[in-house]
Amino acid sequence: MTPGAPDDSGGHRFALYDLFAAYGALIDAAEFDAWLALFAAICTYHIVPRENHERGLPAGLVYCDSRGMLEDRIRALREANKYNIHTDRHLIGLPRLIGEAGDATLVEAPFAVYQTDQEGETRLFAAGLYRDRIVVEAGSLKFRDKLVLLDTFAVPTLLATPL
Amino acid sequence: MTPGAPDDSGGHRFALYDLFAAYGALIDAAEFDAWLALFAAICTYHIVPRENHERGLPAGLVYCDSRGMLEDRIRALREANKYNIHTDRHLIGLPRLIGEAGDATLVEAPFAVYQTDQEGETRLFAAGLYRDRIVVEAGSLKFRDKLVLLDTFAVPTLLATPL
Amino acid sequence: MTPGAPDDSGGHRFALYDLFAAYGALIDAAEFDAWLALFAAICTYHIVPRENHERGLPAGLVYCDSRGMLEDRIRALREANKYNIHTDRHLIGLPRLIGEAGDATLVEAPFAVYQTDQEGETRLFAAGLYRDRIVVEAGSLKFRDKLVLLDTFAVPTLLATPL
Repeated sequence: MTPGAPDDSGGHRFALYDLFAAYGALIDAAEFDAWLALFAAICTYHIVPRENHERGLPAGLVYCDSRGMLEDRIRALREANKYNIHTDRHLIGLPRLIGEAGDATLVEAPFAVYQTDQEGETRLFAAGLYRDRIVVEAGSLKFRDKLVLLDTFAVPTLLATPL
Repeated sequence: MTPGAPDDSGGHRFALYDLFAAYGALIDAAEFDAWLALFAAICTYHIVPRENHERGLPAGLVYCDSRGMLEDRIRALREANKYNIHTDRHLIGLPRLIGEAGDATLVEAPFAVYQTDQEGETRLFAAGLYRDRIVVEAGSLKFRDKLVLLDTFAVPTLLATPL
Repeated sequence: MTPGAPDDSGGHRFALYDLFAAYGALIDAAEFDAWLALFAAICTYHIVPRENHERGLPAGLVYCDSRGMLEDRIRALREANKYNIHTDRHLIGLPRLIGEAGDATLVEAPFAVYQTDQEGETRLFAAGLYRDRIVVEAGSLKFRDKLVLLDTFAVPTLLATPL
């Protein structure tokens, strides 16, 4: 999957688009097992305020350095979601191929997440940028490293669902 | 149009993307005849709060079970739009192929609609998910059944334009 | 690049998608030199409230009739951005091929821009429609004429960054 290569076959690119579309849709549908299946066997998942990241501060809001940590996090969310009082809606912009790093492709995509409360009122919850390393595993594209760079860091209920 | 098939030709997929892009753009431009032409000869158009849909409650905000009903609805909107005091802007995420049902393809896409009032102030109006059945009719992709699952149900001026 | 043509090669269409993805991403990353490189050698860049445009009023918020004017504008923004107290996030919908005009392709895409202030609070800043003429220059797609039709005209800090 070479960015901008003349032989860029539609199939690969559409698979990339589908990966991002599924990523947001599965969170919004609370299908967390299917969501986890979008990650590689060895993976990381970090949510970091954009400002901290630019200043080189490692302090993140969510820091899963292994698949086990990510699965634990999702299990905890499931417990919390029994008392879930909101729903999410992800809008994700067109993914952008940035380059290659070893066997991974660097891809970025902007996002906005809207939350709706029990009264049916919808508000912008967070905006930011996904900066991901994507690999092919068993014939499918998977997130190996997902970095959620968060513009919004005034997010009181941040941990209720992944971003 | 088989989701994820290795021979997924770019043409079909781009036609799907174009269908959704046109859907939002034509509402925003108030080109309702061209918008109607995106639907199949036999079609349905429903707007249902997501919560009602998940609980199996049929109660919808808009319920057009035939093309005639949809055309009537649009005619009524045109009258209302003479006194139109807002404009719409649709942001629609990447469409996602879900599967096949007979000759139709199931496609979902998240959306957000912004409205701007006469003072030029823009607000989020509604967010939700399109869950559609799409068919090929006379060589073009058309919406046969469009289900607008609405996250936001606190929408006072809902009927002013389609979503 | 013929809209909807049966031989629409994926490469061309993806190049178009990439152009719009880069356009938003480079503003958000404040990479204005790379952003300028998305425009043709001879180019225009206009921001006009949608209402003014529809009434044929030429009055625009930003009016760059040449590449020199656009470069000047960006230089001024750089000065202003030393005291930058916000960050931007563009969400751009799927670009839509409208037609051809000479050697240019007419393309439209809806957008929303979110701004985040120093407290990390994110707000919708503006929504609107890009209506662009795109050409091939030295083998790459470039914006020759970019018209930003702005739904939102109540934008106090409009000139802080391009839209």
